[in-house]
Amino acid sequence: MSTFYEKLTGIRAAKKSVLCVGLDPDPEKIPEGYGPDELHLFLEDIIRATADYAIAYKPNLAFFEPLGPKGLEIFAHTVKKIHEHGKGAIVIADAKRGDLGNSASFYAKAFFETYGCDAITVNPYMGFDSVEPFASSEDRGCFILCLTSNPGAIHFEMHGHPPLYQLVAERARVLSQNHQNIGLVVGATRDPALIRRIRGIAPEMPFLIPGVGTQGGDLRAVLEVSGENSLVNASRSIIFAAKRREEVMSTASDEARSLVTQMREILYGKG
Amino acid sequence: MSTFYEKLTGIRAAKKSVLCVGLDPDPEKIPEGYGPDELHLFLEDIIRATADYAIAYKPNLAFFEPLGPKGLEIFAHTVKKIHEHGKGAIVIADAKRGDLGNSASFYAKAFFETYGCDAITVNPYMGFDSVEPFASSEDRGCFILCLTSNPGAIHFEMHGHPPLYQLVAERARVLSQNHQNIGLVVGATRDPALIRRIRGIAPEMPFLIPGVGTQGGDLRAVLEVSGENSLVNASRSIIFAAKRREEVMSTASDEARSLVTQMREILYGKG
Repeated sequence: MSTFYEKLTGIRAAKKSVLCVGLDPDPEKIPEGYGPDELHLFLEDIIRATADYAIAYKPNLAFFEPLGPKGLEIFAHTVKKIHEHGKGAIVIADAKRGDLGNSASFYAKAFFETYGCDAITVNPYMGFDSVEPFASSEDRGCFILCLTSNPGAIHFEMHGHPPLYQLVAERARVLSQNHQNIGLVVGATRDPALIRRIRGIAPEMPFLIPGVGTQGGDLRAVLEVSGENSLVNASRSIIFAAKRREEVMSTASDEARSLVTQMREILYGKG
Repeated sequence: MSTFYEKLTGIRAAKKSVLCVGLDPDPEKIPEGYGPDELHLFLEDIIRATADYAIAYKPNLAFFEPLGPKGLEIFAHTVKKIHEHGKGAIVIADAKRGDLGNSASFYAKAFFETYGCDAITVNPYMGFDSVEPFASSEDRGCFILCLTSNPGAIHFEMHGHPPLYQLVAERARVLSQNHQNIGLVVGATRDPALIRRIRGIAPEMPFLIPGVGTQGGDLRAVLEVSGENSLVNASRSIIFAAKRREEVMSTASDEARSLVTQMREILYGKG
């Protein structure tokens, strides 16, 4: 069985990409032409259109849960379709869970066993006994929120000396020495000097990097400090690039290709 | 429309109780006699048996999500049964969500609108822009994780000067000045001196207090410092008090009555 780190390295090498496509299906932004019960078809179109470029897909549970149990069926279906049509891309459940050890084990079971995701995002506020249950399967990844892309990151994540996000990165590195499946969430909108500092603390850990594109993060500035062991997430700029159903696949594919071309140029000096 | 604070005060006065019953239906602990598809009936029995004593029920999503979409149907059913049979008890979704503002709004929609919960637990790691969307309906409560009951609370919640949990309590108090619906999660297993400090920072805010009972928190020590504006959660000691189905209702009722008798004695000097 491959460890999560091995899986990531393999798919990155195969596709020469660090692109993660975020699946945030805000119902108000779904392109025209999909019926009210065709959200799953929209997501399938996005997956098929971007599978040559994406090494990961990151469905965000926030956009499935308001639909009730049916929303979780669409989530389950989407995970399945990524495994079927994603050409080896991994599935990161953007769930940001975190709870007492026993509860955390149940959440891990939900996302890894019930839904078959390859990784999950985890919130470390409650401490590392709330994180460890997500790290117990070597082939399933656990991306720990470290320094996020939103303005409020300054409230608590940067609190203290050393700032909290550094402490989280240090603890995560310790955990990663026993588990080849721990990554960090680091926002692209943050000062590259801070991202460099986190990379210094955690040289071997994959970074999941949201905030490029609509949120304004600079791809080059980020990748130059985070390096190849990264998953750069783009959501809205890819999935909502088209206004109408008949253009969804071509525009999503174009946007993904364009991003990956830039990534290759930045990382390897060629498009 | 009543604010969340008014709802809480009303139900507390009506039942002379601060008991919250935690619904953590670990499948391995369900008493004998319930079939594999009768989890919802077990939860209904608990609700009916304790409705004279509980002012709130706190279903923990961690125990519903591993069952997949069906688990969310059981969750929805449970919320409905609390509204039907709970004699005015409120429903707190123990979901510990927290995400970017837009995603947080979708989570709030899921728990308040789709499932009809009265309150939710929220993780503040990402900052207050990730918390505020949960506070936007005055009649729905938002319990912010502050100082939790698990051992790992020392890792990050106590980091810095002032410690992070104090900063969270202070920010929450500011938010509560505009929204009569903000509470804090404060673990009963913590040093009462720390709980007293949080009460000093947030004299008007309801505390949701897990950790009494199986986790070892001392009811009297906690209530003497947290005071009447509290929701003391007990889960396993009530819901798994019986080994067999035919004893579930009587033992759950006895345990809840016994706890509430102690609460009244501590708070009001009479049983």
